[in-house]
Amino acid sequence: MVNEEKFVEDLVDQDDDFSKWYNQLVRKAELADYAPVRGCMIIRPYGYAIWENLQHHLDTRFKETGVENAYFPLLIPQSFLTKEAEHIEGFAPEVAWVTRGGGEELEEPLAIRPTSETIIGHSFSKWIQSYRDLPLVLNQWNNVMRWEKRTALFLRTSEFLWQEGHTAHRTFEEAEERTRMMLEVYRALAEEDAAIPVIPGRKSENEKFAGAVRTYSIEAMMGDGKALQAGTSHNMGHNFAQSFDIQYLDADGQRKYAATTSWGMSTRMIGGIIMVHGDKSGLMLPPRLAPYQVVIVPIWRKEKEREAVMDMVDRVEKMLRGKVRVKVDRSDNTPGWKYNEWEMRGVPVRMEIGPRDVQNNNVMLVRRDNRAKEPVPVEALETRLPELLEEVQKAMYQRALAFREQNTFSTESYDEFKEIIANRGFARVKWAEDSAAETAIKEETKATLRVIPFAQPEGGVQGKCIYTGKPATCEAIFARAY
Amino acid sequence: MVNEEKFVEDLVDQDDDFSKWYNQLVRKAELADYAPVRGCMIIRPYGYAIWENLQHHLDTRFKETGVENAYFPLLIPQSFLTKEAEHIEGFAPEVAWVTRGGGEELEEPLAIRPTSETIIGHSFSKWIQSYRDLPLVLNQWNNVMRWEKRTALFLRTSEFLWQEGHTAHRTFEEAEERTRMMLEVYRALAEEDAAIPVIPGRKSENEKFAGAVRTYSIEAMMGDGKALQAGTSHNMGHNFAQSFDIQYLDADGQRKYAATTSWGMSTRMIGGIIMVHGDKSGLMLPPRLAPYQVVIVPIWRKEKEREAVMDMVDRVEKMLRGKVRVKVDRSDNTPGWKYNEWEMRGVPVRMEIGPRDVQNNNVMLVRRDNRAKEPVPVEALETRLPELLEEVQKAMYQRALAFREQNTFSTESYDEFKEIIANRGFARVKWAEDSAAETAIKEETKATLRVIPFAQPEGGVQGKCIYTGKPATCEAIFARAY
Repeated sequence: MVNEEKFVEDLVDQDDDFSKWYNQLVRKAELADYAPVRGCMIIRPYGYAIWENLQHHLDTRFKETGVENAYFPLLIPQSFLTKEAEHIEGFAPEVAWVTRGGGEELEEPLAIRPTSETIIGHSFSKWIQSYRDLPLVLNQWNNVMRWEKRTALFLRTSEFLWQEGHTAHRTFEEAEERTRMMLEVYRALAEEDAAIPVIPGRKSENEKFAGAVRTYSIEAMMGDGKALQAGTSHNMGHNFAQSFDIQYLDADGQRKYAATTSWGMSTRMIGGIIMVHGDKSGLMLPPRLAPYQVVIVPIWRKEKEREAVMDMVDRVEKMLRGKVRVKVDRSDNTPGWKYNEWEMRGVPVRMEIGPRDVQNNNVMLVRRDNRAKEPVPVEALETRLPELLEEVQKAMYQRALAFREQNTFSTESYDEFKEIIANRGFARVKWAEDSAAETAIKEETKATLRVIPFAQPEGGVQGKCIYTGKPATCEAIFARAY
Repeated sequence: MVNEEKFVEDLVDQDDDFSKWYNQLVRKAELADYAPVRGCMIIRPYGYAIWENLQHHLDTRFKETGVENAYFPLLIPQSFLTKEAEHIEGFAPEVAWVTRGGGEELEEPLAIRPTSETIIGHSFSKWIQSYRDLPLVLNQWNNVMRWEKRTALFLRTSEFLWQEGHTAHRTFEEAEERTRMMLEVYRALAEEDAAIPVIPGRKSENEKFAGAVRTYSIEAMMGDGKALQAGTSHNMGHNFAQSFDIQYLDADGQRKYAATTSWGMSTRMIGGIIMVHGDKSGLMLPPRLAPYQVVIVPIWRKEKEREAVMDMVDRVEKMLRGKVRVKVDRSDNTPGWKYNEWEMRGVPVRMEIGPRDVQNNNVMLVRRDNRAKEPVPVEALETRLPELLEEVQKAMYQRALAFREQNTFSTESYDEFKEIIANRGFARVKWAEDSAAETAIKEETKATLRVIPFAQPEGGVQGKCIYTGKPATCEAIFARAY
């Protein structure tokens, strides 16, 4: 029989080595694996099922705002990629190039898309003629490639899965409205579906997307106090429209450049879910995204108890099928081994069914997040279980929010700032929006300006910038980041 | 005002030039567009929505048989691709190669996957240790690339979207069972969801997949009498297991090679839907896969009628939302123009709502397939409309089946065979399974052996092979194909 303590013993303590804990857990829980191609990953079924659930929720939210899905080619001609100057400068070092195809050297190298603004810009310029063609609001679910030197499963891989939305509008203001609307969709997905509290706000000039006028992001705090950018939304203004000649005839008879946006969320979000909710025992998955919301563990000691227990397990499974995502562990392992395994794999609720439960027509529910136990009559399961899953979902969000608040510190002292960054989490500081100062801070502390939160002090910011001493214009969040 | 006859006038008659009709229609209906990269396509929202519906139905069918989704990398090391001799021979001429990445020349070129047997074989060899790890039944939804000289939107493009399933089993027989099971899933998808009758059966040695022991396919007849292979399922036997060392420890203590399978269906299926069901007026989409199942066209002559009509339109739309996929055409075009446009775009049912309908609390339903009209009281819509959509679905299947039967001919004369192939459709002939004869027929008539149907004459085949005169072993279907 397999050692019951196997999973707990093997997993390093996250307080001792968070990064090692993360890497071990991703492999142990069978979420993903390194691929034989450097920097690429294989997403295994358990990890991919999280992605499918995330896709489902995000895609539904997109469509409620009028987004339509489409598909653009994987390969982008070199000449397209170089049309927008800042864009190519940002992406050139990370591009993988196809130079041979069908047995011949290509006349022009083709880039594997690092993102699709350029090839979509080309299509937009053909499709958009009149103001009646606007807004154009498209999204695609696809794979992209950015050659990375240092990689980590889900967080930074050369190939990753994501969605990239691309829209065109009559005015900068309409583009701005869509940019903010999609950031709000990401916020809702993160907070309501992934149970991850995020700080929505604006990126600094240093941190914005290559080619954007404004970049917004949602930033989350991981279990080690570092930040993860969990979704971004860019207002490109007229930059791409001018590079790709996206013009329309307006109602006033004038030809005008459209304003465009783009916005994306990726498999990185799975890394965020692991690092926000995971604990010493392993994963803790939010019920709305968990591949299995409930795992049933049958328990019996004597063979003669087996049949009655399995009858009840089958009956409960059938009753719940289609209402919650349920998994029955029918393997030969001991109950104790199964408890550890499914805790490690983060299933939100465990259901134990043993001989006494059969007698009482009860089951025992055990929460993954706080280990609270609750006996529930079988006939109450269909209502109680979805309720309990929502309670777990909300409790996980509150737990993560409390953690973030405990590890976010306002300071006016740069010395304290350095100490916070090195040891404690997010620093919230007064800031004068100075690029050179931001670069200096990054060099001195490895902290980046994560976001200038939408939520600013009422009545404006008083006082001096933490670094330059100039009059502060806003409060900003700094942290080390993934 | 736009010319009401625009769409009908512009679309060439399919009887005059089927291929031109197809290409025009794909563009006009805004299903897809050529990309600036040679041989690649852009799938536009209306085309992509068909793909999403097809994915939904197929994925649901997969999961009912225990399939789990995963994701494997886009890039495959050259050394992997060359491990299975027949496999590389089949795919080498079509591969696109990445030779530069992250600013450097790569030591080993990386292929953009033309299919993923090799990289998945590598993972299987790591994951499979014991018979307890089997069967392993995975699928991935992804993009693949095969450099094509002659391309047609959906039917043959250098990049296309598909799913590729990959499984490993203890025995050849178990692999065979899964191979046939997945072909049956494709048959059900084609016939029940796409309303396309197909002939399931086995491919000849000449036509089987590079590296397979057996290949099965479903073959459909297009509106011009040519064949389209609409899905394939391959039993690889031990070929890939031996090349990639996929071994397991069996219950008897022996190390054995697993048997593997793969199976795929692609965006090609959308081309099939267009060519099977389309007519002189344009697309005809099967209700289960149509992006919009019903289009509501509001009708009024005088401005004062407008409000009452639009009130009823809004009410009906709200009532149907979430029950059928409904689109309201609120554009400024005339009703006649809208009728033509939505016929051309293949919406299965049109709903007309005018002032008289408001008075009678009725709507008029018009079927795309046979133009039958049916007035329906508003309160009956929720039950009648889904019923009607199922009637259309079944009628479309029957219509396509009758067409195929009318254009399939049994013959024992090679002269007649040549005439059937050139002018009429499928030829069903007695056959002695001879590769050289098959090659000769292809050279002489451009016909390929599409499939050896599972459905063979009871009591076996008597008589002589149509080409060699040898004793026939089966009946086979020959046709020109896409």
